[in-house]
Amino acid sequence: MTITRALTILFALIWPCCTLAAELSPATSNCLECHRSASPGAVADWERSRHAQVTLTEALGKPSQERRVSLGKTPKGIADVVIGCAECHTINPRKHHDTFEHEGNEVHVVVTPQDCASCHPTEVKQYSQNLMSHAYGNLNKNPVYHDLMELTNGVASYDNMKVTYKKPDAGTDAESCNYCHGTHIEVQGSTTRDTDFGEMAFPTLMGWPNQGVGRINPDGSMGSCTACHTRHQFSIQMARKPYTCAECHKGPDVPAYKVYAVSKHGTIFSSLGEQWNAENVPWTVGKDFTAPTCAACHISLIMTEEGEVVAERTHQMNDRLPWRLFGLIYAHPHPQSPDTTIIKNKAGLALPTELTGEPVATYLIDDQEQEKRRRTMQKVCLSCHHAGWVEGQWSRFEHTIRTTNESTLTATKIILAAWDTGAAMGLADDDSIFNEAIEKKWVEHWLFFANSTRLSSAMAGADYGAFANGRWYMNKNIQEMVDWLEFKQRETQ
Amino acid sequence: MTITRALTILFALIWPCCTLAAELSPATSNCLECHRSASPGAVADWERSRHAQVTLTEALGKPSQERRVSLGKTPKGIADVVIGCAECHTINPRKHHDTFEHEGNEVHVVVTPQDCASCHPTEVKQYSQNLMSHAYGNLNKNPVYHDLMELTNGVASYDNMKVTYKKPDAGTDAESCNYCHGTHIEVQGSTTRDTDFGEMAFPTLMGWPNQGVGRINPDGSMGSCTACHTRHQFSIQMARKPYTCAECHKGPDVPAYKVYAVSKHGTIFSSLGEQWNAENVPWTVGKDFTAPTCAACHISLIMTEEGEVVAERTHQMNDRLPWRLFGLIYAHPHPQSPDTTIIKNKAGLALPTELTGEPVATYLIDDQEQEKRRRTMQKVCLSCHHAGWVEGQWSRFEHTIRTTNESTLTATKIILAAWDTGAAMGLADDDSIFNEAIEKKWVEHWLFFANSTRLSSAMAGADYGAFANGRWYMNKNIQEMVDWLEFKQRETQ
Amino acid sequence: MTITRALTILFALIWPCCTLAAELSPATSNCLECHRSASPGAVADWERSRHAQVTLTEALGKPSQERRVSLGKTPKGIADVVIGCAECHTINPRKHHDTFEHEGNEVHVVVTPQDCASCHPTEVKQYSQNLMSHAYGNLNKNPVYHDLMELTNGVASYDNMKVTYKKPDAGTDAESCNYCHGTHIEVQGSTTRDTDFGEMAFPTLMGWPNQGVGRINPDGSMGSCTACHTRHQFSIQMARKPYTCAECHKGPDVPAYKVYAVSKHGTIFSSLGEQWNAENVPWTVGKDFTAPTCAACHISLIMTEEGEVVAERTHQMNDRLPWRLFGLIYAHPHPQSPDTTIIKNKAGLALPTELTGEPVATYLIDDQEQEKRRRTMQKVCLSCHHAGWVEGQWSRFEHTIRTTNESTLTATKIILAAWDTGAAMGLADDDSIFNEAIEKKWVEHWLFFANSTRLSSAMAGADYGAFANGRWYMNKNIQEMVDWLEFKQRETQ
Repeated sequence: MTITRALTILFALIWPCCTLAAELSPATSNCLECHRSASPGAVADWERSRHAQVTLTEALGKPSQERRVSLGKTPKGIADVVIGCAECHTINPRKHHDTFEHEGNEVHVVVTPQDCASCHPTEVKQYSQNLMSHAYGNLNKNPVYHDLMELTNGVASYDNMKVTYKKPDAGTDAESCNYCHGTHIEVQGSTTRDTDFGEMAFPTLMGWPNQGVGRINPDGSMGSCTACHTRHQFSIQMARKPYTCAECHKGPDVPAYKVYAVSKHGTIFSSLGEQWNAENVPWTVGKDFTAPTCAACHISLIMTEEGEVVAERTHQMNDRLPWRLFGLIYAHPHPQSPDTTIIKNKAGLALPTELTGEPVATYLIDDQEQEKRRRTMQKVCLSCHHAGWVEGQWSRFEHTIRTTNESTLTATKIILAAWDTGAAMGLADDDSIFNEAIEKKWVEHWLFFANSTRLSSAMAGADYGAFANGRWYMNKNIQEMVDWLEFKQRETQ
Repeated sequence: MTITRALTILFALIWPCCTLAAELSPATSNCLECHRSASPGAVADWERSRHAQVTLTEALGKPSQERRVSLGKTPKGIADVVIGCAECHTINPRKHHDTFEHEGNEVHVVVTPQDCASCHPTEVKQYSQNLMSHAYGNLNKNPVYHDLMELTNGVASYDNMKVTYKKPDAGTDAESCNYCHGTHIEVQGSTTRDTDFGEMAFPTLMGWPNQGVGRINPDGSMGSCTACHTRHQFSIQMARKPYTCAECHKGPDVPAYKVYAVSKHGTIFSSLGEQWNAENVPWTVGKDFTAPTCAACHISLIMTEEGEVVAERTHQMNDRLPWRLFGLIYAHPHPQSPDTTIIKNKAGLALPTELTGEPVATYLIDDQEQEKRRRTMQKVCLSCHHAGWVEGQWSRFEHTIRTTNESTLTATKIILAAWDTGAAMGLADDDSIFNEAIEKKWVEHWLFFANSTRLSSAMAGADYGAFANGRWYMNKNIQEMVDWLEFKQRETQ
Repeated sequence: MTITRALTILFALIWPCCTLAAELSPATSNCLECHRSASPGAVADWERSRHAQVTLTEALGKPSQERRVSLGKTPKGIADVVIGCAECHTINPRKHHDTFEHEGNEVHVVVTPQDCASCHPTEVKQYSQNLMSHAYGNLNKNPVYHDLMELTNGVASYDNMKVTYKKPDAGTDAESCNYCHGTHIEVQGSTTRDTDFGEMAFPTLMGWPNQGVGRINPDGSMGSCTACHTRHQFSIQMARKPYTCAECHKGPDVPAYKVYAVSKHGTIFSSLGEQWNAENVPWTVGKDFTAPTCAACHISLIMTEEGEVVAERTHQMNDRLPWRLFGLIYAHPHPQSPDTTIIKNKAGLALPTELTGEPVATYLIDDQEQEKRRRTMQKVCLSCHHAGWVEGQWSRFEHTIRTTNESTLTATKIILAAWDTGAAMGLADDDSIFNEAIEKKWVEHWLFFANSTRLSSAMAGADYGAFANGRWYMNKNIQEMVDWLEFKQRETQ
């Protein structure tokens, strides 16, 4: 701590008082009149937000690297008011199917990336290139993955030694896979409710609530900024802390947060993070934070105290990532397009690799693009680590991509043998490839164990590459798959 | 932060110095004379507590909603001293079997709800209606659950292809199931020890140490307030933070904390909770905290900044809960009585549903009471969320209760088939229903996977309804149960 | 908080400014000239460290119990400068195989315990008696454990119903088991790199990066102080917080952190730890912290406010531990020597017990030494808990050591039967004892479930002795092992 920090603290104590004079638009003032008592928690939360304290004019007046808005010039009308209820919930009324008349205003419930783009167009544009913005379709419109989702969420029935699966309803999908991937929000009529302010009608929203990263919105846009920039405080602190990412990146299919938490980076954050400044823009390595969080490596504008840019801010995210590590059967170079439903492998499946692992190269980034992304990420590493360290880490990591793919190929060969011998029914039988016990073991091989091992390698959280759903489980799984095949073949003889 | 907050901080720095003058009773002063050196950690911890700083008279002088004591009027004798060692450890000496003569005082080791009721009678009375207060008996005196406990804790032996289970001893149960459910504490003679202050005799306590929620105490009372209100600081901050609940609600049988931690509520708490005030009574939504913890939804007196009561404080807890989600084979309406050993289903088992899921309605709350409790909880949701959001969430949740019960029924049908065909031995064979491999899979179906999925749905922590012991595991488990049945039937042919 | 604390805070705000005048050695000044821009994160981190702020003369001037250095007298040359880059990275140049010429200095990359011993000789000496310092050899040079490592990390291949395992490469081991155990770092030639300061040559290090506790260093020393005292801030706060230990003690093989996190101690830390002082030396129970962290029980110098020493600082760690709980097939008294490769049991295996559990007593500490260590640890317990509490806890714990060993013996008997009947191939067949499915179940029995149950008992985190990889899994595992044996025997008939 320095005298600067002491002054910062004193200033932080006094400063908010000065900003309370921030001007509200008349429309927002109207909202607050009732909503202070109708939804006090939401209003109080917003009052803590930067939105409630800074006008666009003030925001645009900052030096470019401190700026949190990316529009070219101040739009008329909202330049000198703070961003309140009305500014977000009444913008673009014609584009929103969920717009309804509410106390004399045209209000919509679901604020969307298209709405946020009014002030943050660059971020929204980048995000539209992010795989996440297509997370709904990439799961729900891909026949292979849609089948996996149905076999996971559908209730199984048992009758006469046979198991069959019901089709899951939208509500179940919405709180399972689509909680993170996003739902398709549609207006289906309207609902009238008795409220403290009399009877009122509201649009009935299917797929609501949801804040999934690939949500299909009532204005046709894709995504939800509030997945990470949590309503209504929109705290950048929160977006930068790893807990936010953990909401969707913690389960056995993608234990990124858990890996981080046992990595040296994560233990530094857990132990000393309370002394950091997670609010500053740009984010200065060494001064504001002493170990990366998810945001530092993947998203934030990072600078040095000497003013050098370590990494530009990005909401595409994979522009720092040469490899796609998880979710698919094999790790592979990132897809070129965020819409992965367009990919077809030789077998006609919507997968970026063959079942035997060969990448479907035409849809994926090439070596040169991989190298560019690798360098971008390594520049972040190099702001604390020397080149020999970084090379050693990356060489192990890319080797692990190969060995985990190799292990998945072994598991796949056992499945192919099971299909071949009739012990299980597969592609050739026009049967689901995810419904039988051995197929579920195969899924766990890549979806849990190989993914976990790769994430462990990428972020140096060793447990998840060893005994915590890592290599131990890959080898155990293969032994158990072979035993199952033996027992089953005997059964069917 | 406001100028008020700045002043609060300054005051917080100075204030404790003024309160050091708080008056100790002569008895407590006596205790401290030796115990400052005999148990320095405990004494220092107590010194930080509100007990050490506020007298009953001061506590009763507060406006009713700020009051943390619930007795009608000041009892004589202890009104103007702070609550020290003697006030809790020498109260009700005749009722305590563990009372012993100690340096001229009649002291008891185990402070009980009956002791706490001297100042907090309302809370203790409510708690006696809480299922938790009966947690010891509900596990240990229910033949079905007692068997499950024995088959879990007893050491297995193997001889000649047969597995048998030893009866676990009380010490093992005490650190396994009864750690949370509570032990039965009994005095068995006394032990003489050499201490720094000479030779002394102490009662020998069976089942000690323990702070389980349904502990059977040496004064006959049930429960342990220190399960959540941790000795000797008794910090309300701690009771309100989710880590405290996690001590018993984190395992695969009841992963409530884990679900919370990946929910949006939990990620807000983890990211921004350090800026909250977890000390204030009443607890004001938006001002003191910006997302609920366990206590906010289930226990605390919650108010709005405008002074409206969102939820009254309760230590019964299930008066905000229409459904009992976990621990039993099927989810069902909450039992009417906290003593669930009185329930018998048609098959004569002490279970609130039949093995096939039908609720044993006479022992359970009715629709009307469910609706009342649903509304009580929803009022908490509505302090931040609009009605459409809350309805959407609850509709999914109650649908998930049905689908998870349905999945458990499927697993149960497989077990019934196993018993029927002789592949496993069950109720009709007068054999334990928890000892064979397929029965253990059946237990995991409801105790782990269905519970996890319901908790995930209730609190919107998606992982635990998908790949983290959720729906994925339910369907995998069913396939593996069927395979086991096939392999075993072949075996026995 | 007291007025003292208020003054401490004010002082903390101002104090760092005064120390900026701390004198840098000319060599360190040289380093900083380039490295401020070449590795800004590392330099900024170091600037926050005590190393950057205190000279050896100042450090040695402190009262003995506040001292963090343990050398007898001030060495010449570095007494009146702070400890900067050059002080650590250029010391002992002749001993370091990784010394290279760098801008006129003889620099080495890997700072080792031998280097740290210049100022902290007592800690390094104690650590050399710690099992951890031998963690590399104890895993990699023990044929039994080396085989387990290879069968875990090697990629499995499948061909014609047979599974075989590749030998894992050093890179894979380095990010799996040896991440924590330590790698063997060797210099293999040199690499020339283009840097911002021109072309430079650096030694090529095999096994780098690594900070494992038993790392074999280029100066022949063993261990890595930075495993816990994280570079380059070397914050004692961090070493004392449990997250640091969790980096290697969280997985299913040694879930110590997870057990702690659900224990009452852990929940106190999580809830109230932010109010503690984790910086003070010595560490005063009740004043600086109100519940133990890992360091409090196992390492730190603990004192009472009255100045009594509760526990002396130790970096041997097991001098407070009568039992070795995890990692081996059975729990047993601690080995006498930190080098466990010297142990041989009757069967000729490098194990501290027979396969059937009997301890190989000549290599292990005796009852008397166990009792001494038990008393040392119990003194820590007794600073908050009364003797009856502590006795109750320890009696359960040592009983659980016996019951978990008994359960492992049951699992072992099943394995012996499998080998005996030819259902699996074992020692007598000169086959690996870790490659078949039932053997992997046997490994999980002791490496996961019995270990977890013992740690749960030791630290009172009940989940991990019940449903979270505890007793439930031991009994389920035994049933499944027996079923496997049945199915397999039928297969081979």
